[in-house]
Amino acid sequence: MFKLYYAPGTCALASHITLAEAGAPYTTEKIDFKVNQQNSPDYLKINPKGRVPSLVTDRGILTETPAMLAYIAQSFPQARLAPLDDPFAFAQVQAFNSYLCSTLHVAHAHKLRGARWATEETSFADMKRAIPKSVGACFALVERGMLRGPWVMGESYTICDPYLYTVALWLEGDGVDLASLPKVADHRTRMSERPAVRKVLAEENA
Amino acid sequence: MFKLYYAPGTCALASHITLAEAGAPYTTEKIDFKVNQQNSPDYLKINPKGRVPSLVTDRGILTETPAMLAYIAQSFPQARLAPLDDPFAFAQVQAFNSYLCSTLHVAHAHKLRGARWATEETSFADMKRAIPKSVGACFALVERGMLRGPWVMGESYTICDPYLYTVALWLEGDGVDLASLPKVADHRTRMSERPAVRKVLAEENA
Repeated sequence: MFKLYYAPGTCALASHITLAEAGAPYTTEKIDFKVNQQNSPDYLKINPKGRVPSLVTDRGILTETPAMLAYIAQSFPQARLAPLDDPFAFAQVQAFNSYLCSTLHVAHAHKLRGARWATEETSFADMKRAIPKSVGACFALVERGMLRGPWVMGESYTICDPYLYTVALWLEGDGVDLASLPKVADHRTRMSERPAVRKVLAEENA
Repeated sequence: MFKLYYAPGTCALASHITLAEAGAPYTTEKIDFKVNQQNSPDYLKINPKGRVPSLVTDRGILTETPAMLAYIAQSFPQARLAPLDDPFAFAQVQAFNSYLCSTLHVAHAHKLRGARWATEETSFADMKRAIPKSVGACFALVERGMLRGPWVMGESYTICDPYLYTVALWLEGDGVDLASLPKVADHRTRMSERPAVRKVLAEENA
């Protein structure tokens, strides 16, 4: 049994969808960012980084989306969510997810989390103004060369897909023109039609 | 045969050390950041992101340090650089490396790469002032809870170790007091004594 700590609108959605797609037995607990619950003493015992997602497993607690997604895929091989028998293809999956985690998500985080890297209000305002361009450049790379179609890795649906879907939900809020990203937009639509995605979104937004 | 594109002083060192530790057959090519070679047309064909490292393999090109390190470990299982037969332990390795990539390295990057996320000189100066605190907070987390000792994952040397070593070389330049991080400092010393590390550093600094 898994337990996922998440907050709506965050990258935790990628792991939530992947648990559902895998057919994993899981429960969830919502962390309330409005009251800074991610930095409460109780939650810091789960994840000392004060972030979501965290995944409680029978073996211990995992954090970091790329690691969690790969672990879910490896734990439920029958769901075929990653090319587990092909180290190079698996590395391509990990590289894609690492890019989303360390570059695209980081660009997006400068909209509301500037205090991680600076102290002045003028810097935060500058970062916010840069969001459409910085996040847009990341998605342009995905659009031009990384998203093979119809799924990220081509014909096979993998753990890259719920992660791309999750960050693509931020596009309008980040002021990036979806019309400039037809493959990403098409992918987002196709993802939104999957039963697991509908189920998880209904649960998170309940 | 592998070919690693790197630049001295960058996170590419982690992959370079790992290739040497694995006993992999490889060559290297240095990318000159002083003339912005990472954004030259020729290099952008190798890595459209304009970053190092890139790893050319017989199957294609890989980028993103966590994915490359795991691929090298999987390609040379006899070197025992990751717990390949234990998905949970492997996920812990990946989570550690993902944290270095997406949080610690990103904090460090605000010293010289502020233009990725902002436009004003005042913002860049603000980011630089924040470096000792922001990078220091990341290393404090590593020191307190993530570095088990003597190696990152405990008794076994893994692909987490060259990565931690690589980013720990940035500590003095980032104004973080090494005396506040005794476990990290001890790890750095132990890493510097490994033959593969000496060999690779001599090559990169030649």
